Order: sequence, then structure tokens, then C-alpha cells
Amino acid sequence: MNEMKKVAVIGTGVIGNGWIARFLGQGCDVIAFDPAEGAEEKTRQVVKSVWSSLEKLGLAADASMDRLTFVSTIEEAVQDADLIQENVPERVDVKKSVLTSIDQYAKPDAIIGSSTSGIMATTLQEGLQYPGRVIVAHPFNPVYILPLVELVGGEATTAQIIEQAKSYYKSVQMKPLVINKEIEGHVADRLMEALWREALHLVNDGVATTEEIDAAIIYGAGLRWAQMGPFLTFHLAGGEQGMRHMLEQFGPALKLPWTKLEAPELTDELKEKVIEGCESHAGDVTISELESKRNEFLVKLLDLVEDYWPESNV
Amino acid sequence: MNEMKKVAVIGTGVIGNGWIARFLGQGCDVIAFDPAEGAEEKTRQVVKSVWSSLEKLGLAADASMDRLTFVSTIEEAVQDADLIQENVPERVDVKKSVLTSIDQYAKPDAIIGSSTSGIMATTLQEGLQYPGRVIVAHPFNPVYILPLVELVGGEATTAQIIEQAKSYYKSVQMKPLVINKEIEGHVADRLMEALWREALHLVNDGVATTEEIDAAIIYGAGLRWAQMGPFLTFHLAGGEQGMRHMLEQFGPALKLPWTKLEAPELTDELKEKVIEGCESHAGDVTISELESKRNEFLVKLLDLVEDYWPESNV
Repeated sequence: MNEMKKVAVIGTGVIGNGWIARFLGQGCDVIAFDPAEGAEEKTRQVVKSVWSSLEKLGLAADASMDRLTFVSTIEEAVQDADLIQENVPERVDVKKSVLTSIDQYAKPDAIIGSSTSGIMATTLQEGLQYPGRVIVAHPFNPVYILPLVELVGGEATTAQIIEQAKSYYKSVQMKPLVINKEIEGHVADRLMEALWREALHLVNDGVATTEEIDAAIIYGAGLRWAQMGPFLTFHLAGGEQGMRHMLEQFGPALKLPWTKLEAPELTDELKEKVIEGCESHAGDVTISELESKRNEFLVKLLDLVEDYWPESNV
Repeated sequence: MNEMKKVAVIGTGVIGNGWIARFLGQGCDVIAFDPAEGAEEKTRQVVKSVWSSLEKLGLAADASMDRLTFVSTIEEAVQDADLIQENVPERVDVKKSVLTSIDQYAKPDAIIGSSTSGIMATTLQEGLQYPGRVIVAHPFNPVYILPLVELVGGEATTAQIIEQAKSYYKSVQMKPLVINKEIEGHVADRLMEALWREALHLVNDGVATTEEIDAAIIYGAGLRWAQMGPFLTFHLAGGEQGMRHMLEQFGPALKLPWTKLEAPELTDELKEKVIEGCESHAGDVTISELESKRNEFLVKLLDLVEDYWPESNV
């Protein structure tokens, strides 16, 4: 049995369902709440459809799809939970209102992780009874496969709470990355967003299509980034002298106009280009077929990288 | 035998040597030139050390390390070559001076690919006798493994030259990405540079260490980007409605201050943080050990992704 006996998941969209699948696969009891019609049925369908990926990754001995319960109020969902994962829409007012209810009914020593991709923990903590236990715990899609979770405490959070949270997320086979300074977008999304903004500019300016940009990442940097991040990758590109040589050689390029500095206006025309680009790239293959293919790939890739990741202390 | 009988490689740094290894592995005769002392010995050592990776990727039947010749002038190197790959330092004056010599001695129908990561083909073509055949052919490190090569013609380049170049690079197992609009940094480096600039800001502001940033990529987006680029990845994050839903949900975040908009000043302090971060992350492992590990990983990963890449028309 997992060290977390009971987990609550509030909000069951793509991210919430991803968490549910991960928690179930790791042998937790999961209590879920989502007011949307048909939410329970949809979640059970998602869990069933990704279970084979979870099996390939390795299920906990006592893992079972049957350990999922849907309830009809936040109170019932959170009252006995050790960890509560919040995944409601990414709007400060919505998140704060839901967190206020969770705060009211949760055990004082429960940890409340918000999946927010951009909001700071201190903002989410304002006005709560036990603010310190509300932290950012930001996962990556598909949550049931990708191991990264960014943990960021707010002003009221103690080191002990972060340690407890780290231990919880590690117990469900994640790689918690503790970030000590709060900024909007945390770390991973800022990096992705920088690349994304530049990609939108390239499409907007007619330099490349979405499919060409995808190819420019897949066949080049993407292959390297699955094993090493941008820094260690460049450390190797510098030859025997590593990053020192790299910065001497390419540092001056920082002064060159190699990126656009502002995000482009998301005009209807740009939106259509991007949507059309993805839809035509995907062709007749449905999103769900793409997902199966991605999942099979990621499971094998995770096996592969296990042997090759440079040791990391984080 | 490869359709390119003879290839010339001018400049044998990390990139030039990467090209030599790829060309030899694909059964080409390679003639190399580099004025630096000990260049030939170093190149032969590199080729030898990466040959086992080339074997795992699949050598051409007639591939041999012995088909490499070093010569002592540009004239000898290029006079019989079908394809000439230029890899001298990334400075416009240096590149133009070397290209002027190559242009003088090469066969008129030879193709001259420059490995430049940032300079535009039209700039490189200025003042040459046969300018159209000089194109950007920008590869990615390690060149003997990563398949991406960006091809960009200049004002003098015809569609026929680009087609010929595409065919040449395909014959050495590459994925040529033809870019129809010239911009500094082409496409892939603009994307990488955007992420890199943001990463430097995060280090500069004390938000995360280089190792933490690497982890933020490896365990999350990097795993996805080895198979799908940023667009198709987000297409899947949007659920059944794909990119359309994604843009509705996260489009507004483009207005948020989620990235820094200017590259940070590369102060000595920032340089040291970055260098120290990489060196301490690498620890006792030498660059060359990291390279072997990376190569083994990439060879297996390439095998894996072969089955899972979404069909791409580019």
C-alpha cells in the first residue's frame, strides 16, 4: 500500500484524470469530485483506456481501478484525504473559491497541491485558514506517464511541508522538482512558453508551418532533450572545454536578433493557421489514436532513458 | 556506393568532424581540409571513437574509415567534389573569404553547403562566381547521429539546386528541412535560442540552477519532444478538440509575463554560474564519457522513434 492512504482529486479534466490514473496505478485510494455532468463515466473510461500503459510502466501490487470513488461534494472528497490535488480551470477566482472550500473541510495536516501552470502559491494561499499546506504541484501531460512535478511553496509554507509533499509525490514514482522562488509560470512552462512564443512568430511570419517547426524539434533538439536538458546539451557542444568554450563561441549571438522578443498577437488568422496546421498534420488519425501511439512510445522511452540519464541530484 | 561520389569537408571542428563521420559511414569518399596543426590526427581519432555508434545505426556496405583523405589546400579538397560542406568559424568575414576560395576551385555544378547556424545564404552568396549553389545546410550536434539538416537557399538559388541538395543529404540518411524564407538563426536555432535565453534569465534571477532547468526539460517536455514537436504536443493537450481548445484555454496566457523578453546581459557572474552549474552537474564524468553515453542512448532512441514518429510530410 502506498504511503498516502487516501488521495482526493478535485476537477477531472485532462490533468485531473491523468492524476487519477497515476494515483490508482500506484496503489492509492482515490476520491474524486467534479460537478460536470458525466464526469465519473468519462474518468472511468480514461482510466480504463490508459491502464495498459500503466501496466507496462509497472503497477503497484495493490493497484486497482476499483479503488476510485466519485462523490458529490468537496467536503466528502477531501475530509479523509492525505493529499488533495486541485485541477480546476486556470483562473485565479475559480481556483481560490475551490481552495477555500477544500481548506474548510480538509484535515489540518493534509497537503493540498494545485496543478496550476502559472499562478503563484502565495496568491492561492491568501485568506485561507491553513495557508501553508497549499502548494503548487504542477504536472505535465500525460500525468500518468511523465515523471516531472514542480513543487513551489508560498510565503506561508514551511520546509517541512515541502519535504512531506516531495515524499508523497516520489511515492507515486514522480520526480519532484522543488523551486525555491515563486514566479508566474514556474520554471518548465516558462521554458516551453519561450519556445512556443517563438514558434508562433515563425508561423505568423510565414517562415515555417507548424509541421515544419515540429520536425525542426523532433529530428534535432528533441532527441537530445529527452536525455539531457539545454545546459548539459550545450556543455557537450563545446568540445573538451565544455560550456566555457560554448559561451565564448556563442555568447555573442545573444546580441543578435535571433528571437522575437514579444509574443505575437493571437489574431484569428494566426489561430486558424495553427489549428489548420495541426489538423492537417494529424490527418485521419484521431487524437485518441495519437495518444495511444504517444503512450506506447513514452513507456518504451522511459525504460530506455532510465539507463542513460546522467545522475541528477535534483 | 553513395550517389555522391566525393564529398569535401572544409573546417574540422566538432561540426566538421561530425559531418566527416556521417559521410564515411554512408560510404562516401571524403576529402578534408583544415589548416590547424594536428587536425588530421584529431579527426581520425574522432571518427574511430564514434565508429561503433555508426555501426549500430547501420553502415553503408562500402563504408570505410580509410576513405578519408586530408589535403593541404582548399583547391585540392574541392576540385572533384560533388558536395562541399563548409564548417569554419561563425564569422561572416571568415566564412565569406573561405567560400570565395571554394567558389574559385569547385566544379560549377557542385553544391556548397554551409553549416552556419545563423548567417543567411544570400549574405554568403554575395560576390561569388556561381552564387546560387551556396546554401545553408545547418546540422545538429552530434551530426553523425541527429538526422535534422536545415536547407535554406539564397536569392540566387534555384528550386533545382535545393532539390539536388535535398537528395544528397537524404542519401546520407538525413531529414532535410527546406526553409523557404531566410531569417537569421533559421528555424531550429531560433526555437532553441528562445528557450536558452529564458533559461539564462532563470539562472540569472536565482530561480533555478542549470541542473534544475535541465531536469525541468528532461523529465517533462523533453520526453515528448523526442517524438512530437511543440505543436502536435499541445494538440494532444487540448483533449478531443485538440489545438482549437488549447488556444482557447491557454491563448490568454500569451499576455501574461511568463517569459522575459530580452536576453540577459552575459555578465562574468552569469557566465560563471552557468559554467559552474554544468561542471558540477557533470562531476567526475568527462565530456568524452558523457558523449559515449549520449551516443548509445541516441542510437537506441532513434531505433525506438522510427516506429512511433507521426508520419511527417516535410
